[in-house]
Amino acid sequence: MCGIVGVFGTPYSFQEVYQGLLLLQHRGQDAAGILSFDFLDKNFHSHKDLGLVSDVFRPEILAGFSGQMSIAHTRYATVGPREKENSPLNSIDLKRDIQPMTINYPHGIGMVHNGNIVNYYELKTYLLEEKRRHLFTNNDLEALLNILSDGLREKVEGKHHFDIFQDAVKSLFDKAKGGFSVLGLLADKGLFAFRDPHGLRPLILGERKLTEEEMAVHPTHFGKSYCLSSESNSLNFLGYDVVRDLAPGEILFIDQTGEIFSSMDYSKKKNIAPKSCMFEWVYFANPESVLEERSVYSARLDFGKNLAGEIQALIESGEIKPDLVVPIPETSRVAAISLSETLKIPYREVLIKNRYIQRSFILNTQASRNRAVQLKLTAIASEIKGKNILLLDDSIVRGTTSKRIIEMVKEAGANEIYFATTCPPIRYPCYYGVDFPDPKELVAADRTVEEVQEYLGATRLIYLSETATKKSIGKESLCMACINGCYPVDIGSAKTFQDMRSLHRE
Amino acid sequence: MCGIVGVFGTPYSFQEVYQGLLLLQHRGQDAAGILSFDFLDKNFHSHKDLGLVSDVFRPEILAGFSGQMSIAHTRYATVGPREKENSPLNSIDLKRDIQPMTINYPHGIGMVHNGNIVNYYELKTYLLEEKRRHLFTNNDLEALLNILSDGLREKVEGKHHFDIFQDAVKSLFDKAKGGFSVLGLLADKGLFAFRDPHGLRPLILGERKLTEEEMAVHPTHFGKSYCLSSESNSLNFLGYDVVRDLAPGEILFIDQTGEIFSSMDYSKKKNIAPKSCMFEWVYFANPESVLEERSVYSARLDFGKNLAGEIQALIESGEIKPDLVVPIPETSRVAAISLSETLKIPYREVLIKNRYIQRSFILNTQASRNRAVQLKLTAIASEIKGKNILLLDDSIVRGTTSKRIIEMVKEAGANEIYFATTCPPIRYPCYYGVDFPDPKELVAADRTVEEVQEYLGATRLIYLSETATKKSIGKESLCMACINGCYPVDIGSAKTFQDMRSLHRE
Amino acid sequence: MCGIVGVFGTPYSFQEVYQGLLLLQHRGQDAAGILSFDFLDKNFHSHKDLGLVSDVFRPEILAGFSGQMSIAHTRYATVGPREKENSPLNSIDLKRDIQPMTINYPHGIGMVHNGNIVNYYELKTYLLEEKRRHLFTNNDLEALLNILSDGLREKVEGKHHFDIFQDAVKSLFDKAKGGFSVLGLLADKGLFAFRDPHGLRPLILGERKLTEEEMAVHPTHFGKSYCLSSESNSLNFLGYDVVRDLAPGEILFIDQTGEIFSSMDYSKKKNIAPKSCMFEWVYFANPESVLEERSVYSARLDFGKNLAGEIQALIESGEIKPDLVVPIPETSRVAAISLSETLKIPYREVLIKNRYIQRSFILNTQASRNRAVQLKLTAIASEIKGKNILLLDDSIVRGTTSKRIIEMVKEAGANEIYFATTCPPIRYPCYYGVDFPDPKELVAADRTVEEVQEYLGATRLIYLSETATKKSIGKESLCMACINGCYPVDIGSAKTFQDMRSLHRE
Amino acid sequence: MCGIVGVFGTPYSFQEVYQGLLLLQHRGQDAAGILSFDFLDKNFHSHKDLGLVSDVFRPEILAGFSGQMSIAHTRYATVGPREKENSPLNSIDLKRDIQPMTINYPHGIGMVHNGNIVNYYELKTYLLEEKRRHLFTNNDLEALLNILSDGLREKVEGKHHFDIFQDAVKSLFDKAKGGFSVLGLLADKGLFAFRDPHGLRPLILGERKLTEEEMAVHPTHFGKSYCLSSESNSLNFLGYDVVRDLAPGEILFIDQTGEIFSSMDYSKKKNIAPKSCMFEWVYFANPESVLEERSVYSARLDFGKNLAGEIQALIESGEIKPDLVVPIPETSRVAAISLSETLKIPYREVLIKNRYIQRSFILNTQASRNRAVQLKLTAIASEIKGKNILLLDDSIVRGTTSKRIIEMVKEAGANEIYFATTCPPIRYPCYYGVDFPDPKELVAADRTVEEVQEYLGATRLIYLSETATKKSIGKESLCMACINGCYPVDIGSAKTFQDMRSLHRE
Repeated sequence: MCGIVGVFGTPYSFQEVYQGLLLLQHRGQDAAGILSFDFLDKNFHSHKDLGLVSDVFRPEILAGFSGQMSIAHTRYATVGPREKENSPLNSIDLKRDIQPMTINYPHGIGMVHNGNIVNYYELKTYLLEEKRRHLFTNNDLEALLNILSDGLREKVEGKHHFDIFQDAVKSLFDKAKGGFSVLGLLADKGLFAFRDPHGLRPLILGERKLTEEEMAVHPTHFGKSYCLSSESNSLNFLGYDVVRDLAPGEILFIDQTGEIFSSMDYSKKKNIAPKSCMFEWVYFANPESVLEERSVYSARLDFGKNLAGEIQALIESGEIKPDLVVPIPETSRVAAISLSETLKIPYREVLIKNRYIQRSFILNTQASRNRAVQLKLTAIASEIKGKNILLLDDSIVRGTTSKRIIEMVKEAGANEIYFATTCPPIRYPCYYGVDFPDPKELVAADRTVEEVQEYLGATRLIYLSETATKKSIGKESLCMACINGCYPVDIGSAKTFQDMRSLHRE
Repeated sequence: MCGIVGVFGTPYSFQEVYQGLLLLQHRGQDAAGILSFDFLDKNFHSHKDLGLVSDVFRPEILAGFSGQMSIAHTRYATVGPREKENSPLNSIDLKRDIQPMTINYPHGIGMVHNGNIVNYYELKTYLLEEKRRHLFTNNDLEALLNILSDGLREKVEGKHHFDIFQDAVKSLFDKAKGGFSVLGLLADKGLFAFRDPHGLRPLILGERKLTEEEMAVHPTHFGKSYCLSSESNSLNFLGYDVVRDLAPGEILFIDQTGEIFSSMDYSKKKNIAPKSCMFEWVYFANPESVLEERSVYSARLDFGKNLAGEIQALIESGEIKPDLVVPIPETSRVAAISLSETLKIPYREVLIKNRYIQRSFILNTQASRNRAVQLKLTAIASEIKGKNILLLDDSIVRGTTSKRIIEMVKEAGANEIYFATTCPPIRYPCYYGVDFPDPKELVAADRTVEEVQEYLGATRLIYLSETATKKSIGKESLCMACINGCYPVDIGSAKTFQDMRSLHRE
Repeated sequence: MCGIVGVFGTPYSFQEVYQGLLLLQHRGQDAAGILSFDFLDKNFHSHKDLGLVSDVFRPEILAGFSGQMSIAHTRYATVGPREKENSPLNSIDLKRDIQPMTINYPHGIGMVHNGNIVNYYELKTYLLEEKRRHLFTNNDLEALLNILSDGLREKVEGKHHFDIFQDAVKSLFDKAKGGFSVLGLLADKGLFAFRDPHGLRPLILGERKLTEEEMAVHPTHFGKSYCLSSESNSLNFLGYDVVRDLAPGEILFIDQTGEIFSSMDYSKKKNIAPKSCMFEWVYFANPESVLEERSVYSARLDFGKNLAGEIQALIESGEIKPDLVVPIPETSRVAAISLSETLKIPYREVLIKNRYIQRSFILNTQASRNRAVQLKLTAIASEIKGKNILLLDDSIVRGTTSKRIIEMVKEAGANEIYFATTCPPIRYPCYYGVDFPDPKELVAADRTVEEVQEYLGATRLIYLSETATKKSIGKESLCMACINGCYPVDIGSAKTFQDMRSLHRE
Repeated sequence: MCGIVGVFGTPYSFQEVYQGLLLLQHRGQDAAGILSFDFLDKNFHSHKDLGLVSDVFRPEILAGFSGQMSIAHTRYATVGPREKENSPLNSIDLKRDIQPMTINYPHGIGMVHNGNIVNYYELKTYLLEEKRRHLFTNNDLEALLNILSDGLREKVEGKHHFDIFQDAVKSLFDKAKGGFSVLGLLADKGLFAFRDPHGLRPLILGERKLTEEEMAVHPTHFGKSYCLSSESNSLNFLGYDVVRDLAPGEILFIDQTGEIFSSMDYSKKKNIAPKSCMFEWVYFANPESVLEERSVYSARLDFGKNLAGEIQALIESGEIKPDLVVPIPETSRVAAISLSETLKIPYREVLIKNRYIQRSFILNTQASRNRAVQLKLTAIASEIKGKNILLLDDSIVRGTTSKRIIEMVKEAGANEIYFATTCPPIRYPCYYGVDFPDPKELVAADRTVEEVQEYLGATRLIYLSETATKKSIGKESLCMACINGCYPVDIGSAKTFQDMRSLHRE
């Protein structure tokens, strides 16, 4: 998972994508980058590095930017800090892979993306052997960039520039398989965006009027500024009105005259159904965001409400007797509140996040290592003791954290512990950009619900059903491949998954 | 406000105070320091710097420590980063004032404290003129350290060492006025602690058995380890059982043989009543902590419950009609839940903290500066629109943030906005360690409740009453000087406040 | 001026270019970069940053490299740190311009160069308008890289790969005018090098046998390793035997089988005469280096000896009566010794470099600012007082430093001061890579020798004659354009110089 | 070895000691510190850290200082960086030991020193057991500071303040044995200085008139400013006229009224002879400095001239036939020039220092490791080949570097190699502040000259004789304990040396 944002039309475009990135930081904390293009000096300006957005972009760095269009990217840490230390990936190679990426021919192109290309290795070989193109990085964006570059390579006379461009992107759609949202800059030409034919990864468009101040400092303005972002929260923050989500397979171009061109016919012609990623509502997206016209906050309230239905039956049947509904911070809070309300069982935030512990160094040899030290959470024992606790989390992936939290709540004196999640069992890996672990590590991959329940040590494990998940999100056309194994985009041979992992991990 | 923690008896004492500090980080994020004493090499080891605990104590720094007793301190940022830039206090002077502090005569003493000395300037003059002692810093701890040093200066024969020590501290109690909890190390002798005669600042004692591993590496152990901390959460985290809060005016000494000495007679003899700071329960302390045997979490639940009483009346009388109870993150969450339960009005977390915005640099010249940019919070408009919102915050100090939040909720489309707090109006400055601003900046200092309500722009402003506050905390003997102006310790002339501020600010 | 070095054939190639860079650090202290290619993982690895070689390449960075061929670059600070602060060039743009640079099509090419392209702006326009190639940087290397890339773009069947390559470079020679030495890597193909048709900038080839250890860890070795460097000192240091200087206009390719291909016919066919830059012997090169088979150390001894001839006449005629020969550190030391010997006048090092002053911050408001504070040199007055001092420097560019040194020696009590240099008057700018200032700032540009002498405040100013300079270097075919204005490569319009400067300065 | 400097009387005192430190950087590159006292705010200001002066004192740090009197210190790296890594001394303890040090009672005293206390461990025990004073550091300065503090502890009425002070210092002279020069500040009272009774370590006094600018900004000035420094070069640089070297055993005080008090009677009364350290002229001091009225530069010229006498005899007897005199940079250059002149044998600088290699990281596994890689020097083979080389170094301590240089010159093709030094054989450790290694590591400690010659691999080894050394320096009263074992200050038991080492090393 990553976050991307682009702005066209204001002299503060790099400032806005910077702020937009801050609002997308929850989608990736590993690295960040900005690329701007200045129509006045005809130059790109760029900076990217490992770290949080606010660390990578210190004031003195931002002061070096200029430009009326900019794109930006924040990267998800596919490997944790501990793994990193032992990783064969060293820092110079890690830095090499940070987005945005650029290519100088033709025109000068810069790009960022959120997503994953399933057939990356095939594309790499194709580019090298048939197109004599060397990929310098292990980032699949570079493959997309080269395919687009190759598609734009031949000079075409007498054709409208957007038609040339949309042909190149459609050719890219034909070749590159996966889930991806892309933002890009074409030197001196404009900003472009496109979304994979299924619309697996989100991308939303906003616009606003320029202020008088902006129009005064910006001689070549068009009165308007556009923003494209992974999530609507950054549009809101920056004062952009939402226009719409890009359609699956849509190709958009805002040219240097401020005119917008769009092509939406690819998916229809190819008969490709939209498939939004369910996990955006379950976990990734900011509660403030609205995706595909469905509020994340509302969907989560409905997760809680619909989950209450199933739990109510268990209560009525006497199988469980929860005294308190307790969210596991942060994501499940909203659903826990509606769950509590619907069940009429008190809601208590008795698992406290030790936020300063997170980035700290804890010696392993200490006496207290057998206690809750490694946990980022503390349980308030006085509120838990003797009670039946209904814990709610957004989802269970590996199950290790859930197991440890259950142990901790037990140690705090809970009587019975019920564990509920606002997501069905995750049994299959994601090949489209969600960083799930190797299927062997997915706790539900080869276990029944009862076996997972036993593994976790819960009295009762309750998953939200697939139907209720869809109902809560309010959509039928969801990608739920991680739940049911129905992959909308062909994932090729089994070996691919390991390759894809090594792409990010090795 | 600051946090202090000390450990005696384990070879990992510096590791434990480090972790203890992490748990006290909410009490101060400005600077941090650790001082350890190693009975084997007879040396103190120390490190302190500006910054968060996890930044100041990198692994390579911690690796340099050794010692079976340690004290540590985390400092509250009395001046914000913006003020700091313009501050006459430069970084070399800021660093000079960080705790712990040491003095080499007699014996070698190191100390940390949480609190404030009201008559600091008198003490400084006294020390310089009558005792020829120069104070190198602007930190009032240095005055305490010199008074204690002076008290221990004369060699006394034939008297028990704890009696010599308690005489020196009692003489310090006679001289130094204010609220303070102190932890200290006496080279090769042991760890000491004392609390001001009113017990204005908290300090709690815990103990635990050493593990076999600890006993194996620690030839001179006593089978037990002791921990003293500003809050019980760090004791819990480190696996210490709470023994008790130190009594107001108590003097405690754990000597090199592991024996504990305590003297609690000072306050009784002087007829000084205990006065716990109300603000610990209202705002400062971690919800997980228990102070003076009263759980902070439970007190906050009771704040909500008791507040509901008054609000219920307003609802019944038709004066207000709240649709949602909305906490202002983070502190008021617990009280908001019980308020919602008691009132049977839904609880919604629709103000989302933009946590990555906080440390970021936002350009002032941007177009969107008039929007919510400067706010650390975002309101989820879809949930707020058209509703009557009952906002809950822990307290109102300057009122500027409350005012801005109310504006933001209005912009998000709220119908009516009621603003409640779990604290009575703050009308007087605190001279005992809570960093309230100059009385002129306290919004309630010279305004009626109606005037504050108007200033904030709320439809209705509801303060928890003084009585209900006491009832919720469950204690009568509270210092509520900031509410009612009844100062338990003489605060001297009016000029003192400005001086005291300049102490920290200049 | 810059330094470049490349190594092909050892698994430690990146280590060797790193060490080679350290030996070339005197040619540029502004920035440094390394690019390696690993035939095993088929990947490039790269790192570059502003700063000294030893600061840019910390051990943890070097540890991230692998590869059997590598190229490296160290950049000259065309702008001093003080200018930098006020420079419109900010750090993100400064970083963007650091070498090596890469291009992904065709094949993947990486390059470094030492020198300057006179017609850079024409090339930039040509590339953009006729070739649709965007240049991302202000560094003329990027133009060379694009021209080469364009030359290799078309797939040619049935032609030997070196012939394809040499055709592309010859086409580059036709287009790009200036002085330049280039090193490059072609992904999976090999290392290449070429030198401008006049041979204005140096480049020297060395070879060595691999050690048994190298052969053991390096399965695809060829028994030999090759090194190409700006100067022979790095070859010596790394244990390479000098093979020869590359010929002017030579194109060299070492392919993946270890075979060397070379083409030297371009300059002959085009009837272009070799023109080595005189300034390498006068100032730039390390005294230890041998360029074009002429030892820099020996040439400098001869500068002193030949200068002595002219000075001897002045002594015999009674015009000057030097008591001491005093070198101005560092470059002129070698010549000063032979000057002293030939004249039989004592040599004294009485100008001492304050090496720790150099990087320091000196407040301008101090009382002593009118003294020698700003000077990096101290004069030992006791040895100077009352004596006639014959100062020797390598050359006079702006004259400001020389003027200040003369003042300082005067203040130290010198009787008469004669100022000699081992270089004729510099009257014209260099367009081929030597960073001389704007012609308006060259002290000798529009002054007679007597006028310069007066400006400097010397009793007598003595320049080495043009004839003696050539004789000392032992070559006729030198570029002395900065002395006599005879530019071997057409420098175009007058405006070009300003443009070229802005290239580096903007 | 360390460097110290103090300034009294100018508002730029901290600026001046900073610049003075830069000029003393050759005396220590390990750590640096400044302490100022401001008579206006009555506060000390201080900063110190590991590193070079220019790194420790960045502009933003210097900007934080104020004060009309200041002292400063730069510390010698007694342990090299490689040793440091493996050292039990970690960075927090290394930082703890940096000077200046302060004590708050009585008055507030800050101090720096250059030298070493022989009986440090006895003093430490005495202070702890008899005076109940804990030493926090391993730096012997802290012992001096406590002894002085203890001496000033009792309030004495009716006695002139300088008499009280000189009594305390004389008592310190009675107790602390060794070689030391001390500078100190007494809060609000003035600046003091004293030198050990033998004058083993240097200290020189200068004065200058204040500028009008200084008098304008400095309301309490006395028209003059004073500077005390380890070497005269810093006085010259700062524009101070040398007044005189402090006499051995002299106690100096400049009080807040600008009056100077001095006492010189201690050494005379105790019948203690002056003993200047020979090694200052041989190696430590800057050639520009004048110590005890003898120019270091002139002394070094005389070292060369007098050494020439002995060598001339060997030449005449046909034992050696040198073709070139070659200095080993940096120190021996001056002597090598006069040696060459006197012998009428050409002087050639053919050993070139690779200055950028010094701070670099060189991988050990490289092929070329058997070559000269580890050397900081390169030999210019073309000038050396076939010649008889007379190498000159200042002194031989361990002999390992000399041995390696001789090997390198041999490899460069030298015929015969003669090795001369401007110092007699060093056979005994120094206990007074020169960081010689353990006597076991001194190459001459238990070897005859012939044995050292054989060890080094030289054809002939020539030491300057003890008599010629004294004659060159022009003094009889020198400490030459390292040469002849005659220690002017009792060094106690053999064990002391190891202890003293551990003082700095552990």
